[in-house]
Amino acid sequence: MNSLPIGIFDSGVGGLTVLRAVRQRLPRESVVYLGDTARVPYGTKSRATIERYAIEDAAFLVEKGVKMIVVACNTASAMARERLRQEFDVPFLTVLGPGARAAARTTRSGRIGVIATEATIGSGAYERAIHEACGERAVEVFSRACPLFVPLVEEGETDSQVARLLADQYLAPLREQQIDTLVLGCTHYPLLKTVIAETMGEGVTLIDSAEAVAEETAQLLEQHDQLIDQQAGDKQPSPSRFYVTDAAQRFHKIAERILGAPLEHLEAVEVFGHDKL
Amino acid sequence: MNSLPIGIFDSGVGGLTVLRAVRQRLPRESVVYLGDTARVPYGTKSRATIERYAIEDAAFLVEKGVKMIVVACNTASAMARERLRQEFDVPFLTVLGPGARAAARTTRSGRIGVIATEATIGSGAYERAIHEACGERAVEVFSRACPLFVPLVEEGETDSQVARLLADQYLAPLREQQIDTLVLGCTHYPLLKTVIAETMGEGVTLIDSAEAVAEETAQLLEQHDQLIDQQAGDKQPSPSRFYVTDAAQRFHKIAERILGAPLEHLEAVEVFGHDKL
Repeated sequence: MNSLPIGIFDSGVGGLTVLRAVRQRLPRESVVYLGDTARVPYGTKSRATIERYAIEDAAFLVEKGVKMIVVACNTASAMARERLRQEFDVPFLTVLGPGARAAARTTRSGRIGVIATEATIGSGAYERAIHEACGERAVEVFSRACPLFVPLVEEGETDSQVARLLADQYLAPLREQQIDTLVLGCTHYPLLKTVIAETMGEGVTLIDSAEAVAEETAQLLEQHDQLIDQQAGDKQPSPSRFYVTDAAQRFHKIAERILGAPLEHLEAVEVFGHDKL
Repeated sequence: MNSLPIGIFDSGVGGLTVLRAVRQRLPRESVVYLGDTARVPYGTKSRATIERYAIEDAAFLVEKGVKMIVVACNTASAMARERLRQEFDVPFLTVLGPGARAAARTTRSGRIGVIATEATIGSGAYERAIHEACGERAVEVFSRACPLFVPLVEEGETDSQVARLLADQYLAPLREQQIDTLVLGCTHYPLLKTVIAETMGEGVTLIDSAEAVAEETAQLLEQHDQLIDQQAGDKQPSPSRFYVTDAAQRFHKIAERILGAPLEHLEAVEVFGHDKL
């Protein structure tokens, strides 16, 4: 059981920033990654559609025999968390909770910004999670949807004049709110970190939830006594595997750039209708 | 039979520019429109996926009893035209042929530009169609993918500084080629017409295939003797109907802006698996 892989899914390439952090924190574990590139982006779609897509993604990973699932897509985390926990027995970790808790630990002034997709911001899930993580402490949360950031990253336009102009347009209101902490509430956004940091200025700490997620993944596996331990007799885990629902070649190029290493195994698959199995 | 509606489909809202032209040219006909908003965009995806989506879209319209189908999505036209004609008996008109023929009629210098999605440009379908439309005449075709134009239009950013900057970035190479005709090879692009025209300058004629498609729709129905003719005893057609696969509210807002009139009937539906019926 402990030799089983960790499952990670996202709408596209963004979740690879989470995978990278998980592999750094847990180098002995193997990972199965699913990028739903045939239906990217999720963040402009409705709750019903996002729930259906998330359930199909998770069902695919469950079939692959994963021991837990990291929902490495903020939109799916915000919109489908409850449904996923109802439908499956496997433990889930979403990127939303770890990000909110990291923001709560970081802020001094109690003025926290969140940027994410339209669906994530519309759900109010980050605001609730941050207030929950802050407990009694009074904080103010300022949210802003940045709908063109995902296509920008998917096109590799992470350091262009267009990226700078859009960042300025989206982030100006948050700069005016004098936040001291900004949650990158979409796993695509860490790839725009340089431009976002320049736009926000030095006084603002950016929260990339990837590392917080990796840490909580390790904790969750430990709680369930599922960390791999070859000295205790666990089998050598199989190498990591990558699945996409479309355009493997395109994914391959971006993935190698993000991971800085070749992919062990990449395969195009269908996930439609996997919820019915 | 002649009272049956015309079917039109697109990946999202772009095809409404075609629907508007068809209704102006054929005001007596009724139309069934399908926007596959749950899976927009098509232009960044692979041939296999685009073919599957196009077949499901067409199967949905066939079930609604349409007498012909206008493929109002250039990406589906370029990638799935042959498959659609193999799978269905209903007559198809794609936006690609009428656009290519309009460009052939317009150019003086024989230097024609085409802008479209990555998939459409990658297919080479426009180059082939333009050379075919020009027959013996020697013309040169210069193509350019503009991957961020679709999300820009879907976000309503049609007249912003970002739109101008991107237009300049994408179109500069075409300006240097001294084309005199530019095909807007994606039904979203007419919504960026002002910015594109300003960027290209006065010497360049923009080809918005919508009107050419409307004209060829009328011709096709006439050839098949399927134009509605109430004086000859055809029933009054039912009002136009609009279907989307996701986020009806979002579609509604953009659709009313494009059409300048309220939608008669808008409904959210599923088209997945419709190819199996």
